[in-house]
Amino acid sequence: MKFTIQKNILLENLTYVSKAISIKNIIPILNGIKFELTKNGLSLTASDSELTIKTFIEEKDIVKIEEEGTIIIQSKFILDIIRKMPSDIINFEVIDGLKIKIYTDNNQYNLNCLDYKEYPSLKLEESKTPLVIKSSIFKEIINQTSFAISTQELRPILTGINLKIVGDMLECVATDSYRLSKKNIKLDEAVKDDVNIVIPGKNLVEFEKIIADDDNEVELHIFNSKILFKYKNILFQSNLLNGTFPTTSNLIPTEFEIIAKTNLSDYAASIDRASLLTQGKDKNIVKMKIEEGKMIINSFASEIGRVEEKVMIDVDNNAKIDISFSARYMLEALRTIKDDEEILILLNSDVKPIVIKSVNDESLIHLILPVKTY
Amino acid sequence: MKFTIQKNILLENLTYVSKAISIKNIIPILNGIKFELTKNGLSLTASDSELTIKTFIEEKDIVKIEEEGTIIIQSKFILDIIRKMPSDIINFEVIDGLKIKIYTDNNQYNLNCLDYKEYPSLKLEESKTPLVIKSSIFKEIINQTSFAISTQELRPILTGINLKIVGDMLECVATDSYRLSKKNIKLDEAVKDDVNIVIPGKNLVEFEKIIADDDNEVELHIFNSKILFKYKNILFQSNLLNGTFPTTSNLIPTEFEIIAKTNLSDYAASIDRASLLTQGKDKNIVKMKIEEGKMIINSFASEIGRVEEKVMIDVDNNAKIDISFSARYMLEALRTIKDDEEILILLNSDVKPIVIKSVNDESLIHLILPVKTY
Repeated sequence: MKFTIQKNILLENLTYVSKAISIKNIIPILNGIKFELTKNGLSLTASDSELTIKTFIEEKDIVKIEEEGTIIIQSKFILDIIRKMPSDIINFEVIDGLKIKIYTDNNQYNLNCLDYKEYPSLKLEESKTPLVIKSSIFKEIINQTSFAISTQELRPILTGINLKIVGDMLECVATDSYRLSKKNIKLDEAVKDDVNIVIPGKNLVEFEKIIADDDNEVELHIFNSKILFKYKNILFQSNLLNGTFPTTSNLIPTEFEIIAKTNLSDYAASIDRASLLTQGKDKNIVKMKIEEGKMIINSFASEIGRVEEKVMIDVDNNAKIDISFSARYMLEALRTIKDDEEILILLNSDVKPIVIKSVNDESLIHLILPVKTY
Repeated sequence: MKFTIQKNILLENLTYVSKAISIKNIIPILNGIKFELTKNGLSLTASDSELTIKTFIEEKDIVKIEEEGTIIIQSKFILDIIRKMPSDIINFEVIDGLKIKIYTDNNQYNLNCLDYKEYPSLKLEESKTPLVIKSSIFKEIINQTSFAISTQELRPILTGINLKIVGDMLECVATDSYRLSKKNIKLDEAVKDDVNIVIPGKNLVEFEKIIADDDNEVELHIFNSKILFKYKNILFQSNLLNGTFPTTSNLIPTEFEIIAKTNLSDYAASIDRASLLTQGKDKNIVKMKIEEGKMIINSFASEIGRVEEKVMIDVDNNAKIDISFSARYMLEALRTIKDDEEILILLNSDVKPIVIKSVNDESLIHLILPVKTY
């Protein structure tokens, strides 16, 4: 293998595939990135066996291809090495079979490599009828739900995001059983077969970092046990989680005792200030009180003191409520709503879920369970 | 105590004094900041008993002083609270003796305070004949030497910076016994009595963050066991370290076998790249070879590979050398020299110190001991 390539093109593609390298990985060969050079171009592949990312740099984007070949380069230093190279043009050449020389005029790295024959064969299958979604929309779906997944392995299915499609309606749900976020999107075309899969949340979060907030298309190739995302020159394949995602549609109330309208950023700032004194505490609880059309947020830490915030709200009746919840959960939900929007805070009682919606955007619903305080 | 103050003025002064709060501190009262309000203004004091910082906000910079008083406010949340306040004008009022109410129209914090009578009396003494140095120069002195102090408590004296003044020559030295940095400055006026003190390096680093790179004056009030810096409205008092700082003047060679001139940023980038493969390793060793007027930097990590860098140099003779040193020590020294400068690398043998100087600036000398490799 021998080729010359532009630093920034290689760096961009290496950055994409390196997201599949897991620090927890114990299979040595999977700490490597597969470089596969043919006369058509260079493909890079990395995998942690549950997630595989492959990119392809076309021949026209490579300065010079002198000798085809395949080799596995250790991922640990390669990004730093390429990033710090003093020239815009970098040369690669395999020497002695299992060593790669990476060099410019005045510097060279000789790195020990691994044999490509030991690298597992990773099938990246494409379906004939992929689902197509604009990348800006898919990015938003992930951003607005993924924070609500469970980080605990106790119920593995909750570490995933549930993607359901019936007809032309896509529904995305994430929940850690204390809160839930749900996003609905109307697709351009209806699907023939209903979809109901659970994608590992951490993989979707990595994919979200790769795709841009623009009009490019993301193709979803869905199979029984895996999903392949195709975006520009990138193939991103994740396993799916086994098991049944809990039915959540019946959890979200449709009628409410109290409907309070308020300014998103003022409300978020008040929650943030009220939560200051209990920060670092596990639950980070604040109390929200609505009475006679007024809202008070407060919190109390016995050693430190108390804080009280008045929030301007519009409320449709004089119902009273005094409800406690995790400020962190609330702030994470609020952060997914655009800054300039008004929100609705929908309540029934101090033991029923709090529902948060944007006034202008019906597609997104956040639900937070209250916390009992005595 | 009751007053109204501008958020940014209070925040700036709180930020200064909070640098004296130590996370290791075990005396409860010293986790507090002393607020002392008189008709002349508000003084803030914090201390970890070895370092005391006091600032004074004059009456003309306070919106309204309604009632004088003194109270100790816990430092842990106060900066965040003030920073997040939703208004530019903030009200303070002591209630029930040991509680402070911090409030604006729509929010209020009630914080438990400590009794000022329990706060130690901290004398901040001024001398009649302080030494005066421009703050930009004093900032530079600290920046160019403090990184070389020892972080190990084994030889406490080496955790300080040695400040010596004889006549109108100020000399600043820091060393951890593996490297040494020395800065000389000519003062505007000669001192009457020679000075030879050792100031705790970590305190000087905190002071450096407070002073600006400008023409304001720093006053040094030097006593037997402490030093008081006066800068604008800030008093910054540090203890001095006991013991004798090692004599270092005889450590720095004055004659050299090899004098190599090179471009600072190219040399630093080469060291940085050469050190990549041994990063994370304790010593982070690179090898520098000069032969026939050429310089090669290289490094080797058995599992990973090797790297070699050619560096352009001007050298006055054909002497050969092959010397190993810590890349981290070298990079930290190089970082204190201005980017656009050429440097001199001064060498005698592979077991003698490496001396680094700027070509244009004789006031600063860095010395790095070589490492033996086999």
